[in-house]
Amino acid sequence: MRSHYCGSLTALQVDTEVTLCGWVNRRRDLGGLIFLDLRDREGLVQVVCDPDEKALFELAYTLRNEFCIQVKGKVRARPASQVNADMATGEVEVYARELVILSKAAPVPLDSNQNNSEEQRLKYRYLDLRRPVMTERLKFRAKVTSFVRNFMDSHGFLDVETPMLTRATPEGARDYLVPSRTHKGKFFALPQSPQLFKQLLMMSGLDRYYQIVKCFRDEDLRADRQPEFTQIDIETSFMTADQVMAVTEQMIRELFQQQLQVDLGDFPRMTYADAMRLYGSDKPDLRNPMQLVDVADLLKEVEFKVFSGPANDAKGRVVALKVPGKAEAISRKDIDGYTEFVGIYGARGLAWMKVKAVGQGIEGVQSPVAKFLSDDIVNDILSRTEAAAGDILFFGADRYSVVCEAMGALRLKLGEQHGLTEQGWKPLWVVDFPMFEQGDDGQLMAIHHPFTSPVNPDPAALQQAPEQALSNAYDMVLNGTELGGGSVRIHDPVMQATVFRLLGISDDEAAEKFGFLLEALKYGTPPHAGLAFGLDRLVMLMTGASSIRDVMAFPKTTTAACPLTDAPGLANQAQLAELMIELKKE
Amino acid sequence: MRSHYCGSLTALQVDTEVTLCGWVNRRRDLGGLIFLDLRDREGLVQVVCDPDEKALFELAYTLRNEFCIQVKGKVRARPASQVNADMATGEVEVYARELVILSKAAPVPLDSNQNNSEEQRLKYRYLDLRRPVMTERLKFRAKVTSFVRNFMDSHGFLDVETPMLTRATPEGARDYLVPSRTHKGKFFALPQSPQLFKQLLMMSGLDRYYQIVKCFRDEDLRADRQPEFTQIDIETSFMTADQVMAVTEQMIRELFQQQLQVDLGDFPRMTYADAMRLYGSDKPDLRNPMQLVDVADLLKEVEFKVFSGPANDAKGRVVALKVPGKAEAISRKDIDGYTEFVGIYGARGLAWMKVKAVGQGIEGVQSPVAKFLSDDIVNDILSRTEAAAGDILFFGADRYSVVCEAMGALRLKLGEQHGLTEQGWKPLWVVDFPMFEQGDDGQLMAIHHPFTSPVNPDPAALQQAPEQALSNAYDMVLNGTELGGGSVRIHDPVMQATVFRLLGISDDEAAEKFGFLLEALKYGTPPHAGLAFGLDRLVMLMTGASSIRDVMAFPKTTTAACPLTDAPGLANQAQLAELMIELKKE
Repeated sequence: MRSHYCGSLTALQVDTEVTLCGWVNRRRDLGGLIFLDLRDREGLVQVVCDPDEKALFELAYTLRNEFCIQVKGKVRARPASQVNADMATGEVEVYARELVILSKAAPVPLDSNQNNSEEQRLKYRYLDLRRPVMTERLKFRAKVTSFVRNFMDSHGFLDVETPMLTRATPEGARDYLVPSRTHKGKFFALPQSPQLFKQLLMMSGLDRYYQIVKCFRDEDLRADRQPEFTQIDIETSFMTADQVMAVTEQMIRELFQQQLQVDLGDFPRMTYADAMRLYGSDKPDLRNPMQLVDVADLLKEVEFKVFSGPANDAKGRVVALKVPGKAEAISRKDIDGYTEFVGIYGARGLAWMKVKAVGQGIEGVQSPVAKFLSDDIVNDILSRTEAAAGDILFFGADRYSVVCEAMGALRLKLGEQHGLTEQGWKPLWVVDFPMFEQGDDGQLMAIHHPFTSPVNPDPAALQQAPEQALSNAYDMVLNGTELGGGSVRIHDPVMQATVFRLLGISDDEAAEKFGFLLEALKYGTPPHAGLAFGLDRLVMLMTGASSIRDVMAFPKTTTAACPLTDAPGLANQAQLAELMIELKKE
Repeated sequence: MRSHYCGSLTALQVDTEVTLCGWVNRRRDLGGLIFLDLRDREGLVQVVCDPDEKALFELAYTLRNEFCIQVKGKVRARPASQVNADMATGEVEVYARELVILSKAAPVPLDSNQNNSEEQRLKYRYLDLRRPVMTERLKFRAKVTSFVRNFMDSHGFLDVETPMLTRATPEGARDYLVPSRTHKGKFFALPQSPQLFKQLLMMSGLDRYYQIVKCFRDEDLRADRQPEFTQIDIETSFMTADQVMAVTEQMIRELFQQQLQVDLGDFPRMTYADAMRLYGSDKPDLRNPMQLVDVADLLKEVEFKVFSGPANDAKGRVVALKVPGKAEAISRKDIDGYTEFVGIYGARGLAWMKVKAVGQGIEGVQSPVAKFLSDDIVNDILSRTEAAAGDILFFGADRYSVVCEAMGALRLKLGEQHGLTEQGWKPLWVVDFPMFEQGDDGQLMAIHHPFTSPVNPDPAALQQAPEQALSNAYDMVLNGTELGGGSVRIHDPVMQATVFRLLGISDDEAAEKFGFLLEALKYGTPPHAGLAFGLDRLVMLMTGASSIRDVMAFPKTTTAACPLTDAPGLANQAQLAELMIELKKE
């Protein structure tokens, strides 16, 4: 039905007879002629309808936006004066000889100026996706998956499908449940990840596995979360953490090179401890040059309890964050805003200090807290933060986690608002995570997941000092977003049982939930390791989209609904009766 | 940890120092040496442990089957007398210098002679998959998906993901339901296919789509069905049925060429009517040369009601099936067995006729029904079936559908049992399906699905004589298995509404279930068509596996359970409470 894509025509096709199919993007009646911008997946081209072709011209006159039509005609060069440099096909136009309306269109319910609510865009997603920016994102996503698959194939990784109807997985988020009809009263769970299956594939001797696979989490949605999302899931036997990092880093580097002509270079590595110390985050955005500077040791003796309290508390932290040269730009009102902002993260206030001159103690600064400090202390703070006249410092003093979160977030906000965050791409690996974190009740919780191996493979050593243990895990971070994470897995049944016990999982519970894994570990499990990337986030970053919803064809709303199909919907009673379930009244 | 795969070593590596990782397939102590067959994904290689290397030798002595080990050593040529031609690496062996036990193995619970129940195999799937035949199938499957993706990519099809959590789809089988937590009392359905989403992608202007995607049907399982299965799903705008058939046929042809070095040639086309007439099936196995021969017209007048009844009934059918040269080979006991067999399909008996001589009327045949027939009729039957002495005919006389099913199945059984079915590959397209079939209550039902376009795109013509309408659908059949099927879709809202009405779907119900589709059809829907292949069946056929379970990593049992993970499992009450559902007591 078509010889060329609209968007593919160039001067090379001049004088060629072409057949195009596409949508009327715009119709203009000008100088007795009708001009159509005809659009398909590859772009737009101008079609000219001449009144000399009477029937065609009359039909063209009935065309409205989004009519789907077929046009036959000859490509001709536009006169120099009419060349449109903004259009890929701007040097040519198609002189129409035949026109067929394939399908009419009612006036579209979306505003062409894009003043559409998210709800409207999703309800008429098929119209929203016709926008070139959206089409390009889906095309780009397809290129990314194609690249990843070819890379993985060529490195000996096998694409293997794992089940969607499975057992509840232990990732911690809520599972989506699927009632079984043949096993009444029982439920499948949709996988939060194929973690256990990919480990079982390594035990099966498959050696290297990958899959681009849907995963599910029934979470309370935030802006950047979806109930179903897609992972690039990777697992390999007989590779060290370094080797897994090397091959996956190479993949991402080549992907950026090929698709964006960007050289990411070698990814630096940073320990979790350094990331938290310098950036208050385990996914630091290195485009932002500001760092947190610890100053607790300088403030242990001050009378000001807001500082000295956390400074003397092993679980507290006190940091300064210097915004270079912005003392003037940042007003009292701005500071009030930042104070409110850090409050979101639990900080109870935000001390600040504008620097007028250095080495002059209290006299050299303007700060509501200066009066609580000595000249020496002020000088020491300015010296340690390498502050200069015109800078402003913010202080965070609280529990360790509150300071990290609040000041880490403030750092990002200040960087963006004041143009301190560079353009470009800053990847890194974060490594040497602790195995566990401690809940308020003292119970250890896994930082990654309970199948992550400690760096030291001795179960007795782990048992002895679990809080000190580092895990053999690694996260790839790009521009402050976690692109992916993984670890060396436990392949020793004794180590696995030890970790379950440290996590407060009783032997009975372990047997009930993970008995098959513990059993499988008995039969010659190879050392194995892996990693999973969030495909949606990767594509979002690469396309510059502001939400993962914009790189999915049919995403859900933030209440996990689909305005297009109106899912979820009511089930009929017969179905529920077959499943032996009943709806509870509120 | 490894320099080479075990299975990759050849004479080219002689004198190379290698590091191998793998599983002990077998240990033999022979002539004072220990020989290990070391296995990995790519195959086996012999490792020799010499008592001169004392510590290594002692460690090797502790090895048992399925221990996972690392071996360093030098590749050396085997003496000519010890070359093992049955082994890909049979010309070489590895002289071990270092041995590390990576992971011990308890005695494996699967019988190495493969006398394992399906249940056992699935419970210890990770051990079952270590068998080279299973590993090869998964590797082959990965090659197929890789080929398909590269083919589709290079033909301009975009890989686009469609939702897994969606609305109940209309394919007719039971949906798997997923209760929503945020929309209490409502349910998602897992897709039986991405049918409506891929049509919506065409409405979105994506032009060409494909996806290798999981689909779900909560059916009562038969041998060749699984609750979750995988489709190669394809849709395109602006292509005719012929073009869709051409590109997908090319894909399958190139796939067989590349992966099996088999040339399938051009696929013949057969109408649905011919397929039913000649083979009693819409997926005829053309490797079997036998055909059904209609003989109702010859039997209208006979007294034998079993024949004359269906022969005179517009809804009846009478056929003969000739098994050439098998009159002697097929005993009375065999015939009793076949009679029972056709009974499964509702046939109430199975008349037969052995041919001693042709043209001699009743005298020339041996048959319990001969006495009801005249010489002329017998001669006519033998003549029409081109029977010869030594042949045996079977007769089917019943309702049309019973005759087709029973005699079609008998044809296949006879072909296999008597060696009449050829080896090799016989693909074809079946086309010109009826739009509808009529239920016993007279209600029309879609033969494909309600979005299939009739060949004649005029809604009024369809309305007038729906029973006669042919659909613009096509099935690809290979060796009696439906590999895939598809159709041109309806892109006209009037036609879609007409089809819904003919299917007895009220306007209200259509609006409720498919309102979004009818709405979408208003906005310039392009003509579009598509096809979906069953990946599991395709790989099963290509690998010669006897079940789709053997080409899936982690299939379910026939009761839709997973003996490995013990899914489905019990849900905890808190989860159910959050979902506002309750289990009903039996």
